[in-house]
Amino acid sequence: MSSKKLLPPKTGDLSDWYTSVIALADLADYGPAKGTMIIRPYGYAIWERVVSELDAEIKLKGVDNAYFPLFIPMSLLQKEADHVEGFAPELAVVTHGGGEELEEKLVVRPTSETIMYQSYSKWVQSWRDLPILINQWNNVVRWEKRTMPFLRTSEFLWQEGHTAHATHSEAEEMQMWGIKTYAKIYRDFFAMDGYEGYKSKSERFAGADNTLTYESLMPSGKALQACTSHDLGQNFSRPFDISFQDKEGVMQNVWQTSWGFSTRSIGGLVLAHGDDNGLRLPPKLAPIQVIIVPVKPQDSGLVEYCKKLYDALNGQVRVKIDMRDDESFGYRLNKWEVKGVPLIFKIGNKEAEAGQVTAKRRFDGIDVAIDASEVLTATLAQLSDIQDTMLKASQQHLMAETREAKNYAEFKTILKEHRGFIKVYWNDDPIIEKQIKDETKATSRCMPLSLQGGKGIDFMTGKPSKDVWLFAQSY
Amino acid sequence: MSSKKLLPPKTGDLSDWYTSVIALADLADYGPAKGTMIIRPYGYAIWERVVSELDAEIKLKGVDNAYFPLFIPMSLLQKEADHVEGFAPELAVVTHGGGEELEEKLVVRPTSETIMYQSYSKWVQSWRDLPILINQWNNVVRWEKRTMPFLRTSEFLWQEGHTAHATHSEAEEMQMWGIKTYAKIYRDFFAMDGYEGYKSKSERFAGADNTLTYESLMPSGKALQACTSHDLGQNFSRPFDISFQDKEGVMQNVWQTSWGFSTRSIGGLVLAHGDDNGLRLPPKLAPIQVIIVPVKPQDSGLVEYCKKLYDALNGQVRVKIDMRDDESFGYRLNKWEVKGVPLIFKIGNKEAEAGQVTAKRRFDGIDVAIDASEVLTATLAQLSDIQDTMLKASQQHLMAETREAKNYAEFKTILKEHRGFIKVYWNDDPIIEKQIKDETKATSRCMPLSLQGGKGIDFMTGKPSKDVWLFAQSY
Repeated sequence: MSSKKLLPPKTGDLSDWYTSVIALADLADYGPAKGTMIIRPYGYAIWERVVSELDAEIKLKGVDNAYFPLFIPMSLLQKEADHVEGFAPELAVVTHGGGEELEEKLVVRPTSETIMYQSYSKWVQSWRDLPILINQWNNVVRWEKRTMPFLRTSEFLWQEGHTAHATHSEAEEMQMWGIKTYAKIYRDFFAMDGYEGYKSKSERFAGADNTLTYESLMPSGKALQACTSHDLGQNFSRPFDISFQDKEGVMQNVWQTSWGFSTRSIGGLVLAHGDDNGLRLPPKLAPIQVIIVPVKPQDSGLVEYCKKLYDALNGQVRVKIDMRDDESFGYRLNKWEVKGVPLIFKIGNKEAEAGQVTAKRRFDGIDVAIDASEVLTATLAQLSDIQDTMLKASQQHLMAETREAKNYAEFKTILKEHRGFIKVYWNDDPIIEKQIKDETKATSRCMPLSLQGGKGIDFMTGKPSKDVWLFAQSY
Repeated sequence: MSSKKLLPPKTGDLSDWYTSVIALADLADYGPAKGTMIIRPYGYAIWERVVSELDAEIKLKGVDNAYFPLFIPMSLLQKEADHVEGFAPELAVVTHGGGEELEEKLVVRPTSETIMYQSYSKWVQSWRDLPILINQWNNVVRWEKRTMPFLRTSEFLWQEGHTAHATHSEAEEMQMWGIKTYAKIYRDFFAMDGYEGYKSKSERFAGADNTLTYESLMPSGKALQACTSHDLGQNFSRPFDISFQDKEGVMQNVWQTSWGFSTRSIGGLVLAHGDDNGLRLPPKLAPIQVIIVPVKPQDSGLVEYCKKLYDALNGQVRVKIDMRDDESFGYRLNKWEVKGVPLIFKIGNKEAEAGQVTAKRRFDGIDVAIDASEVLTATLAQLSDIQDTMLKASQQHLMAETREAKNYAEFKTILKEHRGFIKVYWNDDPIIEKQIKDETKATSRCMPLSLQGGKGIDFMTGKPSKDVWLFAQSY
């Protein structure tokens, strides 16, 4: 039975396709507690590649890794009013420890601002103690009513960077570095184009003065908030009393940022690139970049030829041979297609005799012939080309699916006919945003950095505006 | 004020010294919830090095990383009777999520056997699905009444490997690989010698048929259980129904192992090598291997000389320059001594003019003169020699502090006069072990693999025995 046949078409019920492909490709499984997820080795290997690349960027910026506790006393979480209001509905609460009821309830961290900033207030005394640049890789819990593997789970993995600075401009630079770094990871590794921009008042992080986001567009025409970077101003440094004596001896509160990138990104990767045959992984994130599939794994001559190819690639390419002799050739090809392996080497007697490889490019389905004598060079070139091709496809999709609306009528027509991003002039107003959301399910996704500079008319009020915004329905 | 002066002597109240050095060296801080700990960047950088080395060994063995949920439904934990009995007193329990009381209480994982094995039972059908070799790096919670940073905290970081095999002998090989790999990490990176051996019936893991441990000896003469590797037999595969059809078509239960290495090891590192002046870090784990300390950071000529040394080392050695001009030379030297940096370069005009470096070896306090022209070669040689010297010192300490007792009277005398490991012939008996523990606070630490083979007389009963055991008081 082909696993391909078990996969419903992506163009049908997307959520059905999504959960099926995640199961069939062995990316993840459901955990026993509601809304939790098991990240299986194949899915976790993708996350490990992301961690390795992003962690290197974080270290290069001079940010140190550390670890803060999972449990936050309720009283600590309540110190910043907007923050606790934003997270209160999503908290998991520990009431018993070591067989006894606790005097104070403990919250399982939904994010670590409060527990980290209590320490920052102890660590910062003088301008010499600044900046504080700390990141942690950990797990957080946000109780969710409706869950989807990777995209929305009660527990997820992420990094959260938390910095404290002497000046607001230094904090702003850090916040911008955060989103630019994330955008680079998304474009260079995920092959997912998107818009960097500011969130509206309604959509920003609970406790932030403003939030930068990277918004990507899924093939369904819905947007995905891929990661965020926050300017926390002095909203936390005041209640947590994180203050320092500046060079002139004056006491000041620090300026702060926080920024996070999570396993949600893997959900985006699946949605963005998958097709009716399963996953399509960009080579840079693929746990297996090349799978060698001999037609007959019982044929020792053929297997020997496959092993030579393997030896030529191994070390520079993540490569495996599929020798399962209880599965048909066709079944094995489908299996690796579902798993999204970028290059599938189909090796029969024809190939072995000619000293050739028939390599199927998973992304566009094209078969290419490679000479065994130059298999390493040709494979590296193919992988690089596939990575580029995937990013270009994503860029074209983003451009094609960003449409302009001059007024609310045009806005609603575009949403009905195409979805996608709708570009409008708009003066950020939470009451109007709520109206739009109630009537169309679309929200402002961001005020994209790359599209500002002109002048126009607010698409809702008709008043002058110089702010360009992107709206969309979203995950 | 010198941070050295704030440090009480190690030979005095050891626990006072221990908590002081952890604070003064910026390794860790207390978390706000009872028994929790903040691992600060300097401490976390040590852990990151351990993770990187151990993870490479784990991958080399063909074990894949994955991630399982933090929350375990209470009913799942209760499936293996010994296991739940062992962990029940230490559980943290989530009773509320998303503002509502949960139908079923969730346990914050104290270890992941139960949640992982429920999945294994779904994933394993045939002998072709075996072995399952999965590891995860995560946080676990065990509610502790008496806590100490790193050594015993309510939450700690670790890796837990969990494998399932078709045969018992394959599982035994895996269990042994676990402890041998840990021992290698301890000896080669922590420079901490110890004994690999089996735990007694009273001391083994809740749910295991037997437990292999690595037991190291602290300068106080108390033992530290550094990590463990368990043969779980079929104790979990029966209640969790992890079964497979073997090649002959017969249904069988799998054989399992689990093995874990935690941040507790950092506590061992501090205790094992620290002295009255603070930490002494082995070069392979030191976040900073060389600190360059100019006598006068205001002297631009001197700073230029330091930067040349830095450039010569950077990339191959983890090196920093301390340019704080608000701290005296002596204060800065003490600061880096407390932090245990293996080589401290003291650079004054004398050194700059002579094209020399005065390098203080933190471990033995010896000053060595290095020519600036060959600073890289000489530094690498010193670091390598310090690493070797530290391991040798640990080996000698272990040998000198392992004493033989023929009977209980000798046993008690040794314990009173020296502590350390006491080597005895003994036939493992939980009732007798309890008596010894009640009377002397010592427990069996392990039946060391390296000391078996002879014949003797059980030190408690006078009966013949061929099992050599090590007893000690422990952390």
